[in-house]
Amino acid sequence: MKELLVRLDASAGKALYEQIYEYIRGEIMDGRLSRGERLPSARLLAQSLQVSRSTADAAYAQLASEGYLSARRGSGHYVCDVRALYHFTGGQKTDASRKYPSGYHFLPGQIDEEGFPYNAWRKSSKEALAALEASRGLLRPGEPQGEYALRKEIASYLHHARGVRCEPEQMIIGAGNEYLLQMLLQILGGPCRVVMESPTYLQAYDTFRNAGCPVAAVPMDADGMQADRIPEAFAGTDRQDCGVTLAYVMPSHQFPLGCVMPLRRRMELLAWAGAGDGRYLIEDDHDSEFRYKGRPVPSLQGMDRAGTVIYLGTFSNSIMPSIRISYLVLPSQLVELYHRNCGFYASTVSRIQQMTVCRFISCGYFERHLNKMRGIYKGKHDCLMQLLKGRPWVHRIYGDHAGLHIAVEIDSVRTEAEIIARAKAFGLDVQGMSGCCPAGFASPGARPVLLLGFGNLTKEQMQEGLAILEQCMG
Amino acid sequence: MKELLVRLDASAGKALYEQIYEYIRGEIMDGRLSRGERLPSARLLAQSLQVSRSTADAAYAQLASEGYLSARRGSGHYVCDVRALYHFTGGQKTDASRKYPSGYHFLPGQIDEEGFPYNAWRKSSKEALAALEASRGLLRPGEPQGEYALRKEIASYLHHARGVRCEPEQMIIGAGNEYLLQMLLQILGGPCRVVMESPTYLQAYDTFRNAGCPVAAVPMDADGMQADRIPEAFAGTDRQDCGVTLAYVMPSHQFPLGCVMPLRRRMELLAWAGAGDGRYLIEDDHDSEFRYKGRPVPSLQGMDRAGTVIYLGTFSNSIMPSIRISYLVLPSQLVELYHRNCGFYASTVSRIQQMTVCRFISCGYFERHLNKMRGIYKGKHDCLMQLLKGRPWVHRIYGDHAGLHIAVEIDSVRTEAEIIARAKAFGLDVQGMSGCCPAGFASPGARPVLLLGFGNLTKEQMQEGLAILEQCMG
Repeated sequence: MKELLVRLDASAGKALYEQIYEYIRGEIMDGRLSRGERLPSARLLAQSLQVSRSTADAAYAQLASEGYLSARRGSGHYVCDVRALYHFTGGQKTDASRKYPSGYHFLPGQIDEEGFPYNAWRKSSKEALAALEASRGLLRPGEPQGEYALRKEIASYLHHARGVRCEPEQMIIGAGNEYLLQMLLQILGGPCRVVMESPTYLQAYDTFRNAGCPVAAVPMDADGMQADRIPEAFAGTDRQDCGVTLAYVMPSHQFPLGCVMPLRRRMELLAWAGAGDGRYLIEDDHDSEFRYKGRPVPSLQGMDRAGTVIYLGTFSNSIMPSIRISYLVLPSQLVELYHRNCGFYASTVSRIQQMTVCRFISCGYFERHLNKMRGIYKGKHDCLMQLLKGRPWVHRIYGDHAGLHIAVEIDSVRTEAEIIARAKAFGLDVQGMSGCCPAGFASPGARPVLLLGFGNLTKEQMQEGLAILEQCMG
Repeated sequence: MKELLVRLDASAGKALYEQIYEYIRGEIMDGRLSRGERLPSARLLAQSLQVSRSTADAAYAQLASEGYLSARRGSGHYVCDVRALYHFTGGQKTDASRKYPSGYHFLPGQIDEEGFPYNAWRKSSKEALAALEASRGLLRPGEPQGEYALRKEIASYLHHARGVRCEPEQMIIGAGNEYLLQMLLQILGGPCRVVMESPTYLQAYDTFRNAGCPVAAVPMDADGMQADRIPEAFAGTDRQDCGVTLAYVMPSHQFPLGCVMPLRRRMELLAWAGAGDGRYLIEDDHDSEFRYKGRPVPSLQGMDRAGTVIYLGTFSNSIMPSIRISYLVLPSQLVELYHRNCGFYASTVSRIQQMTVCRFISCGYFERHLNKMRGIYKGKHDCLMQLLKGRPWVHRIYGDHAGLHIAVEIDSVRTEAEIIARAKAFGLDVQGMSGCCPAGFASPGARPVLLLGFGNLTKEQMQEGLAILEQCMG
């Protein structure tokens, strides 16, 4: 059993457990820790590195979850046979290959880092701070629902850009979609039955499950969730007691498949929701800002006359993922329930951040930014589609012409998990369709499907990344 | 039925429903709408003012909840007899009396607005933005647990100021206490049995109830929650199925009573938690920064050897309430559960806000600010105590020498609700003990108890406010 001489740098801005993880991973990849070798216990490791036990545990857990170590009960952690993952490229120095693609990946949800209007953002931030300083607003609690001025700006934007019809009074601003979904369940009085498209957005699924909701999959066709198959989703289950059923849909850009729901299907969903008490559609309007072909599709919410649509949007892709501002638009009959059940919660978004975004929108920067980014992302989209053309392993492409990723179904002798693990050994992160398929949910095909996020990639990075992926499929 | 000619100003930065509410309230107070008069239906009002139905509903709901209107089912809204509330001062012009105390109130949770180091904050904000711009971090998602650098700063501060012993890996940064409590329940696997001090902090109570937790009150004596009476809290209930019991306590400054828990009681609580599986103490270290007498009391968490204390703190009072940053410190055995159950949630605090606070702490501004504010608040505290001295209606004072409010038990012929309503008619907001006593929870005495927040009051405002309160008691 070797002693592990990890050099920890507390000021590195990287978690200690990550530093330990990276060190051990490097040792394994470079062959200095070999297959079957036993590692010191987490307790001993913690002692020798002068870190907490939980830090050592976290590092081992991460390594085990990625297949570098296997834990044997009561006996400790052993190095797995992972060399196959990266040795297939030949005898080249693994250290070099491991660092091959630096600073980029194919994960969806990445945004372009070149086109951001830093000056406008800095200006908005400075002016918002000055205004809040002058009004003393900085030192006072904000409005629980979110700053009225920001709600007004968002409502106006949603109206003209997405056809959403709402008053600021119907809107709740919160720290991310998952938080607002948790709040929505509290507004509705507790866990609800939920149906989701199959495959779907895992974070939303996990949020519903954590809140105690029974969640069922509804099959999709090319038009999205098959409305006529909602009733069978809960058939045969005992959970007939829940008063409310929520159908979570992404009509303008389904995640992960990227399809856009046509009008007829939208009408079917609205008809389903209108046909019974306690039925609501949650419209997650994910990535609707970026559409590269045809006319923009207005929101489901704007077509709703019965007050059955709950609209959810976010600035994560349209401004930046680190800002944590989402907005929920309630049908007016739920507004009173919000005040009754959740009115006591303070806003989860800092006032200064809200007012910065408010100014960013009201000064016209947001609109200009979106227009510019639409062009940039269309360019990246077209480039990736061009690069994929004629590749023999491309079986089918889902979700082109919109959003910041496409899904590619692949002809390969490897499984999806193998391809992803091999790519990871090169340091290239890519997500597979299986990450969108919890139990009961299904991929659209039997072949591997990879989600290729292109939001922050250059042409060179796409070329290099695709070359790596091709190697990993072989 | 009169038509209501509300002049709405969409650019006023005030919600439309609030403008309607204020207009109607003014009409009632000034006698232009008199007792028993029927108001237009919300539908008609919305139509005539060209606002949404929900806006009109919200205004009526607010007026009804404050006793200005009564709603009769199927018949509409009628003006209540509220003139008694403000006419007892004699024939003076009500409009003037209504606006008497302007811009101040006695609500707890208000912080001083004079001593805030705006320059240091602006500098921290600017530097954080510049650093995140340089590193591209602004446009990338942050760490789900919160930025490591900030967790390190907070851990170090908590260690030397509060005796908390933790690694940054044990800490989760989130958008407010209520959010972190909701997450804690998910970490623990779902609703838990909760016991709370009686009286207690209503927001935490409501959060637990919304999450489906059975919540029971445990009586307090002068030392805080009576540990030996925890077992009887759930006696006779059917909920024996929950695996986990949480005791929510505020040992360094109980809200609302302000008592500080002595060592012996702390040991008793730790002994209770250690004596059974699945027992945890939630230590809400509310207002612990501000103590004006004696030595600071170190945290319960620092005394815990069994990993039974979950520590919760916030920057709402120590920096500003509009910033929405709280921190939860988990015992190390719960860290893995956090990663398993809640690791998929993105952070709820924007990266730029986190790094601003990080810089505010690391540059020494936070420490300096706290020291300065301790002096300022001690001055305000002493001033209020001095002003209360010898007043015949003061029966007993709770929670002096710490925090930003005191609780005053009052000899009065009026009920607590009457005094609060009469003060409100003067435009003076004050909270009573009843706001801390949901069903099953009790005030410490039979008399009215008012919570007097002093954090942002001048001596003149205190004098004027107390004079108004005295009038309201008569």
